[in-house]
Amino acid sequence: MSQYSIAVLAGDGIGPEVMQEANKVLDAVEKKFNVTLNRTAYPVGGYAIDTEGEALPSKTLLGCEQADAILFGSIGGPKWDTLPLEQRPERAALLTLRSHFDLFSNLRPARIYPGLESLSPLREDIAKSGVDVLVVRELTSGIYFGQPKGREGEGEEEFAYDTMRYSKREIRRIAIAAFEAAQKRRGKVTSVDKANVLVTSRLWREIAEEVAKDYPDVELDHIYIDNATMQIMKNPAQFDVMLCSNLFGDIVSDECAMMTGSMGLLPSASMNEEGFGLYEPAGGSAPDIAGQGIANPIAQILSAAMMLRFSMNLNDAADAIEKAVVATLEAGVLTGELLPADKRSQAASTSQVGDEIVKQL
Amino acid sequence: MSQYSIAVLAGDGIGPEVMQEANKVLDAVEKKFNVTLNRTAYPVGGYAIDTEGEALPSKTLLGCEQADAILFGSIGGPKWDTLPLEQRPERAALLTLRSHFDLFSNLRPARIYPGLESLSPLREDIAKSGVDVLVVRELTSGIYFGQPKGREGEGEEEFAYDTMRYSKREIRRIAIAAFEAAQKRRGKVTSVDKANVLVTSRLWREIAEEVAKDYPDVELDHIYIDNATMQIMKNPAQFDVMLCSNLFGDIVSDECAMMTGSMGLLPSASMNEEGFGLYEPAGGSAPDIAGQGIANPIAQILSAAMMLRFSMNLNDAADAIEKAVVATLEAGVLTGELLPADKRSQAASTSQVGDEIVKQL
Ligand SMILES: CC(C)[C@H](C(=O)O)[C@@H](O)C(=O)O
Ligand SMILES: CC(C)[C@H](C(=O)O)[C@@H](O)C(=O)O
Repeated sequence: MSQYSIAVLAGDGIGPEVMQEANKVLDAVEKKFNVTLNRTAYPVGGYAIDTEGEALPSKTLLGCEQADAILFGSIGGPKWDTLPLEQRPERAALLTLRSHFDLFSNLRPARIYPGLESLSPLREDIAKSGVDVLVVRELTSGIYFGQPKGREGEGEEEFAYDTMRYSKREIRRIAIAAFEAAQKRRGKVTSVDKANVLVTSRLWREIAEEVAKDYPDVELDHIYIDNATMQIMKNPAQFDVMLCSNLFGDIVSDECAMMTGSMGLLPSASMNEEGFGLYEPAGGSAPDIAGQGIANPIAQILSAAMMLRFSMNLNDAADAIEKAVVATLEAGVLTGELLPADKRSQAASTSQVGDEIVKQL
Repeated sequence: MSQYSIAVLAGDGIGPEVMQEANKVLDAVEKKFNVTLNRTAYPVGGYAIDTEGEALPSKTLLGCEQADAILFGSIGGPKWDTLPLEQRPERAALLTLRSHFDLFSNLRPARIYPGLESLSPLREDIAKSGVDVLVVRELTSGIYFGQPKGREGEGEEEFAYDTMRYSKREIRRIAIAAFEAAQKRRGKVTSVDKANVLVTSRLWREIAEEVAKDYPDVELDHIYIDNATMQIMKNPAQFDVMLCSNLFGDIVSDECAMMTGSMGLLPSASMNEEGFGLYEPAGGSAPDIAGQGIANPIAQILSAAMMLRFSMNLNDAADAIEKAVVATLEAGVLTGELLPADKRSQAASTSQVGDEIVKQL
């Protein structure tokens, strides 16, 4: 029987309660698919700051190193926002994990589920046009990590600077990830850049073109980041895979997430070249609704499905979870934020949604 | 009688035909407000490449230097897209003009006009929530112009880099522009940054806070660029003035423009510290519809109004044009793209819209 080990980092806010539902689903997967998914919980984020003195304690990092994948909840909240930037949960834990494990390939799917179109902030005809985008974001380079970064000078001429930087190798590996994904989807990659202004973007475009030659069945086109934010609003159905640098992918993936109107449904994967990955919901820790049992666990559960698919190659189990989620949505077992205001009283709780998904499995 | 001189750079695509309507309106302003607006036309963009061999001929630059303001049409088109980047209309003419005249302050208003809500790609309730945003974008620094920029190294480790850079002085002057604008509007500035990742953004935030102290009547808050692209979709009415760096302003202003669904109505102003400015429509040269007399001249006409207001202090004339535009929209004299598909046969031509605005004046 195949056996895998998972580091479970539930984190802050709604993290723990949605993670509990993901664990239920993984328990069900163990039985149904005859695998062992050993899970060990580790502290991370604000909770780890409070209990261990830092956002990413060394035992947590060690636990992650020993696991086959990290299932991540969410971190951060007002309580830790006044800490110096470098100690804050997002930076100290999330950016450090990305860079420590070289998790360069970030996949952020965003789709509008049939029946949930009215949640989208977009006009009905656009929301109903069949929106299903996968943002492939480079996650360990670009202006997030480029050196030098700093401050110099005096008085009014004092200046701050950051370096946007990409090597051919870094661009090539994320471009390959995008083309591979497109082959399994609708065969189209749209590369997002600002090649009319940035030298980095010109190299980006060059390498995207080179990689495209190895994928004759995938169509490649290019779009400027400013135009991309417009087209996502006007006609999101035109996009299949969007290939983005770190900063542009941050922007594009969040706009795509919002466009669906249902952040609580969106998972994400961050992987390295060895298939090790960190899997987390696209939304945040939502401290305002934490602890009430009303948070949507689906993004966490779909993140677990991505983990089974990408880090464990358990495609059947991943497919089964994804189908069970769709069936749950179709059955109308929905948390409050997915319901119109006048139907909120019929909302399912976090654990009811988890139970229904297990049942549908 | 006051007298002003204007360098008129109509450019490519729909530029010349919409400029003709702006000229009609300025003729009417001369009579009604007893001013002289001397206009001299100069070649720019693709047209200048074809006729003079470069996108910004020296006589054009000289003409601009001698004028009180530049009224700009639009430039570029497929014909010139294969030129080396540095020679292309956008870079060779537009970025050069911005930097030559130190046009650091870019104002891009975006509003959804009552009655035109159905053009917006946003859901009806959002489009009707009273959307009226002014994006204040820094236009002569940041990653567009920061040095060094280049390529180095060999093989797969060859890398490209760009520098994002802002001095205190550069941030302060654009922040002041945003606060001044907010005082004349609804008293709120939202500063857009990525301070959780970029050192430049941290300095940006610091200076925005400093400047805010001099404007106790204006409220300041901060938003990350990724969240900004989400909020513009979800609840654009929350924004009054959005203060942005060059790159973030490029992205935010285009998303705001698209959100209105009527790019043909949106003007822009790019000014320096002396009040000299370049005024141009937010949309592009639209080569696909050029020469057919169907382009909307309103963005060009409102750009002329901004010119009268900011470079000539002719506020009454500017107000009068803006009112005449609203009256024209209300009278239903609309170009085709503002009409539902089944009413396009009743569309007004470019010159009919210009005539109506003159009449309303
Ligand atoms: C928390 C922040 C540093 C992070 C990022 O910008 O990458 C977040 O916005 C994300 O997209 O995961
Ligand atoms: C043409 C291009 C360089 C320009 C920019 O990015 O500034 C354009 O997108 C704009 O916003 O005026």
